[in-house]
Amino acid sequence: MEDERLERQLDFALEIDKEKNVFRQTHLSGHGRNENDAEHAWHMAVMAYVLREYANEEVDIARVMLMCLIHDIVEIDAGDTYAYDAEGLKTQKAREDAAKERIFSILPEDQKLELMSIFDEFEAYETPEAKFAHAMDNLQPLLLNNSNGGGDWREHGVTAQTVYGRQSLTRLGSEKLFEVTDRIIQENVRKGNLPSGVEEDL
Amino acid sequence: MEDERLERQLDFALEIDKEKNVFRQTHLSGHGRNENDAEHAWHMAVMAYVLREYANEEVDIARVMLMCLIHDIVEIDAGDTYAYDAEGLKTQKAREDAAKERIFSILPEDQKLELMSIFDEFEAYETPEAKFAHAMDNLQPLLLNNSNGGGDWREHGVTAQTVYGRQSLTRLGSEKLFEVTDRIIQENVRKGNLPSGVEEDL
Repeated sequence: MEDERLERQLDFALEIDKEKNVFRQTHLSGHGRNENDAEHAWHMAVMAYVLREYANEEVDIARVMLMCLIHDIVEIDAGDTYAYDAEGLKTQKAREDAAKERIFSILPEDQKLELMSIFDEFEAYETPEAKFAHAMDNLQPLLLNNSNGGGDWREHGVTAQTVYGRQSLTRLGSEKLFEVTDRIIQENVRKGNLPSGVEEDL
Repeated sequence: MEDERLERQLDFALEIDKEKNVFRQTHLSGHGRNENDAEHAWHMAVMAYVLREYANEEVDIARVMLMCLIHDIVEIDAGDTYAYDAEGLKTQKAREDAAKERIFSILPEDQKLELMSIFDEFEAYETPEAKFAHAMDNLQPLLLNNSNGGGDWREHGVTAQTVYGRQSLTRLGSEKLFEVTDRIIQENVRKGNLPSGVEEDL
């Protein structure tokens, strides 16, 4: 029995390797290639640790880091849904629910429930940990995109209004990091990297 | 002053993005491309959490995860040194020390010292956390390579003896996971993926 438990854990470890093949719309700094989910999760977790002093409320940083690390595992099956893709966002929940069930079920039951609970907590956006992890999920691609002159926004024709729609939620996790976010968005509007008007037809 | 602190933290966050461009000798499962350091670190951290029950001694899992996440940051400057590259291993320490100083110095002084201390603890291989993190550093590429029929070993002409030289240290962090390691190595020897004899000339 013990070995069956360990086998399931190792199967899970091998399964999540596939997250490295899920590519996002964000590009690496230095006008690099598209980033993948595993890299994004790693980056978020390190940033969460380094920036933890800016969380609005005290957070269990280990839980935040774990949330960051596993929050995109479902995209192994469901794929990445771009933050400003309105059509994709409509079906995202159903696709991710099925993926969650399949992938976490590889683990022993107790760990399946534990990791699903952490995943659900992130999605629910209610606890201080979830709010701060989401702030990282917003800030990390913003930093990369800003370093590349806003190329990811231009590629998708999004406007400042749309970007604020998502990025303003960073305020729930960190007022201070939302100040940074706001400054970066405003700078990009000024530089002409991000139109301030209404959405273009895509 | 507060803003200078935050600027340094954000500069560090952007700097470590470069770790995604440091490629390793390990290939992703499914006979995929070479893995990079950021993906490897992410994978190790998640594995550490899922497999923590097998640590020989009780570990502070948050510290283990953080060690996993930052242990390869120095390779942004120093490059990846293959575990079985004897020549590269001779200069590895000096290259990594210079990198450590440069990269962690981007952070505010207190965080520079904190992260360097965690990095040094990993390197020293003495605490239960460092030993368990090293077990992940060994097991993670072993799982990938095993899933690919041992292709990474063949590519470098290493033998079971050499592989054991490194992988046997997993025992210091987890006797149980060394049993898995030993079983995997023996299976690969039996299948002819890994010669059991002395090193070939490279």
